[in-house]
Amino acid sequence: MKLHQITDYISGDLNDSAYRELEINGIGKIETATEEEITFIANPVYEKYFSGTRAGCVIVSRKFNPELYPRISGSKVPLIRVDDPYLAFLTLLEILSPKTELQKVGISDKAIIDDTAEISDEQVRIGANCFIGAKVKIGARVSVLPNTVILAGSVVSDDVLIYPNVTIYNGTKIGARVIIHSGTVIGSDGFGQAKNPDGTFQKIPQKGIVVIEDDVEIGSNCSIDRATMGETIIRKGVKLDNMIQIAHNVEIGENTVIAAQTGIAGSTKIGKNCMIGGKVGIVGHISICDNVILTAATNVSKSITDPGIYSGYRSQPQLDELRSEAILRSLSKKNRY
Amino acid sequence: MKLHQITDYISGDLNDSAYRELEINGIGKIETATEEEITFIANPVYEKYFSGTRAGCVIVSRKFNPELYPRISGSKVPLIRVDDPYLAFLTLLEILSPKTELQKVGISDKAIIDDTAEISDEQVRIGANCFIGAKVKIGARVSVLPNTVILAGSVVSDDVLIYPNVTIYNGTKIGARVIIHSGTVIGSDGFGQAKNPDGTFQKIPQKGIVVIEDDVEIGSNCSIDRATMGETIIRKGVKLDNMIQIAHNVEIGENTVIAAQTGIAGSTKIGKNCMIGGKVGIVGHISICDNVILTAATNVSKSITDPGIYSGYRSQPQLDELRSEAILRSLSKKNRY
Amino acid sequence: MKLHQITDYISGDLNDSAYRELEINGIGKIETATEEEITFIANPVYEKYFSGTRAGCVIVSRKFNPELYPRISGSKVPLIRVDDPYLAFLTLLEILSPKTELQKVGISDKAIIDDTAEISDEQVRIGANCFIGAKVKIGARVSVLPNTVILAGSVVSDDVLIYPNVTIYNGTKIGARVIIHSGTVIGSDGFGQAKNPDGTFQKIPQKGIVVIEDDVEIGSNCSIDRATMGETIIRKGVKLDNMIQIAHNVEIGENTVIAAQTGIAGSTKIGKNCMIGGKVGIVGHISICDNVILTAATNVSKSITDPGIYSGYRSQPQLDELRSEAILRSLSKKNRY
Repeated sequence: MKLHQITDYISGDLNDSAYRELEINGIGKIETATEEEITFIANPVYEKYFSGTRAGCVIVSRKFNPELYPRISGSKVPLIRVDDPYLAFLTLLEILSPKTELQKVGISDKAIIDDTAEISDEQVRIGANCFIGAKVKIGARVSVLPNTVILAGSVVSDDVLIYPNVTIYNGTKIGARVIIHSGTVIGSDGFGQAKNPDGTFQKIPQKGIVVIEDDVEIGSNCSIDRATMGETIIRKGVKLDNMIQIAHNVEIGENTVIAAQTGIAGSTKIGKNCMIGGKVGIVGHISICDNVILTAATNVSKSITDPGIYSGYRSQPQLDELRSEAILRSLSKKNRY
Repeated sequence: MKLHQITDYISGDLNDSAYRELEINGIGKIETATEEEITFIANPVYEKYFSGTRAGCVIVSRKFNPELYPRISGSKVPLIRVDDPYLAFLTLLEILSPKTELQKVGISDKAIIDDTAEISDEQVRIGANCFIGAKVKIGARVSVLPNTVILAGSVVSDDVLIYPNVTIYNGTKIGARVIIHSGTVIGSDGFGQAKNPDGTFQKIPQKGIVVIEDDVEIGSNCSIDRATMGETIIRKGVKLDNMIQIAHNVEIGENTVIAAQTGIAGSTKIGKNCMIGGKVGIVGHISICDNVILTAATNVSKSITDPGIYSGYRSQPQLDELRSEAILRSLSKKNRY
Repeated sequence: MKLHQITDYISGDLNDSAYRELEINGIGKIETATEEEITFIANPVYEKYFSGTRAGCVIVSRKFNPELYPRISGSKVPLIRVDDPYLAFLTLLEILSPKTELQKVGISDKAIIDDTAEISDEQVRIGANCFIGAKVKIGARVSVLPNTVILAGSVVSDDVLIYPNVTIYNGTKIGARVIIHSGTVIGSDGFGQAKNPDGTFQKIPQKGIVVIEDDVEIGSNCSIDRATMGETIIRKGVKLDNMIQIAHNVEIGENTVIAAQTGIAGSTKIGKNCMIGGKVGIVGHISICDNVILTAATNVSKSITDPGIYSGYRSQPQLDELRSEAILRSLSKKNRY
């Protein structure tokens, strides 16, 4: 790719039009990139490497001043100035890295497809040993990798990517451009058990479904349970890391991101634009409002109605929690003689 | 279904025999049910909706007094009085909701069944891409959904339901009416590693098995390890939510229920009728007696010998733990100047 | 097996050569072993059972003094003295227990193997419904059990054992003698999401790989994410229990062992010979030095530079943490009137 093409692609400005026809073949770190590779500086900590880099081009912010870091070799280096060097770099990473085609276009003759399933004829990929149940609908350009199971009546919208060994239970609705990683289970029964007088439990039938809206990504080995009645809902743009437990009738608001090993108990509603750390636990039947940040390993047992940062084994606003912790540690020191 | 049939089915009393032949076609919430639907009031909080409901029939407790909630429309409404409205409703939910048949009766010609496996000829369902190993025994009316693997010598008793992508290792014994959700692994090796003098580890062979007794339900993505020697045992009526880790040689007592993401370390014994919240951690080689409640996110590092409720990052009887928490918070406030 | 063979096999000394030709057919606990079985005493707590055991032979330490525990029956019992009775017993367990062959040598005609995959012709076992992608390399004596998926370009070295329903993403490198249990996912995308100005997130491409070095064992339902760029590395001899989350670009040092449900966030580096308990959480972008012990449920949010034992909801050196806990409990008691 020539530098003027890259410059256009990332909406940047090249520092000298003499470099327009230079060729770039790959991507590297600023410390190790070669003359045929492009690199970037997003974090000022890395600006010091500018003096010595051998990279063929550096993507920098519009504020970057190369005169602060004189080049050791004395040579000039092509710069592309952009608003956000990291996003620009990511965009390039996507187009310059070699892509592995994991599944050919078409339906493997080793996939098992029910006669009543409706599969788009536009660029669908369905791998070997997949099972597609009765009346399942699969949209255009969907990829289902080997050994994944989609049970009866589920709907998979356009441009969805499902990795191997995923299980989608019956009646699940999956929006466009959703990505689901291996080992994840969507639509398993909610944990509903009613106690009988003799101490045994009777299963509460789980008759609802799971709805995953557009642009959601779900990591590996997650469990998202179907609703008892109605829907468990993962709203548009939600991003889930690995091993996340979403219980029955939970709703997660738009663009909320959740890190690994977090669990959300039944019927809880999480707002939009929340950021939830790893290993967080949230009890059932509460609400978390929009724009809440829960730091890693926080446990939440009451509804949160004000945006802000919350932390702790029993969640508090973060400043209170850190103060408690500091006091406990200082008491501990006073008692040490 | 006619109201007199429903009344019989849930062992209730209809408030007026004039309603005996009324038809009900579905189930709804009290706020939204239509005239063709039946609903229920189990929690007194919902009694206020009685005045305005349009439901064709309401299941209520024997103590419910409709005169406290005068009907807005002035019309009367059929009532069925029962001992436990919620259990009655669940029973109805099961029979009135449409059922999806996920697997036809019979053995899929795309299943791989070892010649030495013994499969009952009574109503067994085995899905595509299943693998059934040598000398496995499958009882009557068992359903094994697609892509599940059952390794050599395992025994699956009557009326068991196993969802897709489950893995049952060799020698596992599964009781009657057990339900196992997708992604769950039963019988993987216990985590036994003996340290060598040079710092490397030698694997301790795991030669025992897992025994799952009757009427157990196991959620999705659980791991239940085989014993080093002897048995890891899940007793009759135990209910496990998703992503639960049960280590080697653990025993879980009858009718104990455990919520998601809880982990129990090796050789620990849990009593009967315990209720264990989500994200609980229990160390190895201890005992928890019968009738213990552990609230969510509790960590238990010592045996518990008295029934009761225990909580906390280091578990204490719940009252002590809440008191510690309150004191720490009040200290925090005193130091706030 | 005759006693002189067993004695040689475990490098021990038989207490009386008259027993050399005695036959042993199995293994038992000291309380229940029969005359045809061999048992062991590793823990002095069990020495008291020596007086009454009916075992055909007992493996003991070189210091064990049988005269302290006179035999009830008056009969003598064959003893094999060794340096480490437990290790000796494990060695025997491996050879005396009946082995179940879970997969025959050869490639199942129900496995799907890409034409460009390179499979060793030495004793390889590949089960039914496996999927082996393009250019995958499989070494000698590798076993891949049914329904496992290995995507394009992955390399599996000699003597690896992969259980059913495992997913290996493209480009993964797996060393010799590695064991991977069911449900585990290796190489799924790291959790990289860049926030757009409108609150939505853009996926950061995950272009790196996972490298698993020799002699690693990985339990069931683990998730090990591929690097954003470069490698996520699990070094030689690491042992992972079940349900462990390893994020992108993490490195785990040689011979470190990690118990179940622990999670390690992105780009964190763990040293050699560490012992990490269950349910531990470690944030991203930090380092843990060699020889660190983290007790169960510890959360680590800062780098650890000194070997030692660390504990707590916010990790501290263990003595400090226990002191904090004790003070809090004593305050709680003082405030109880």
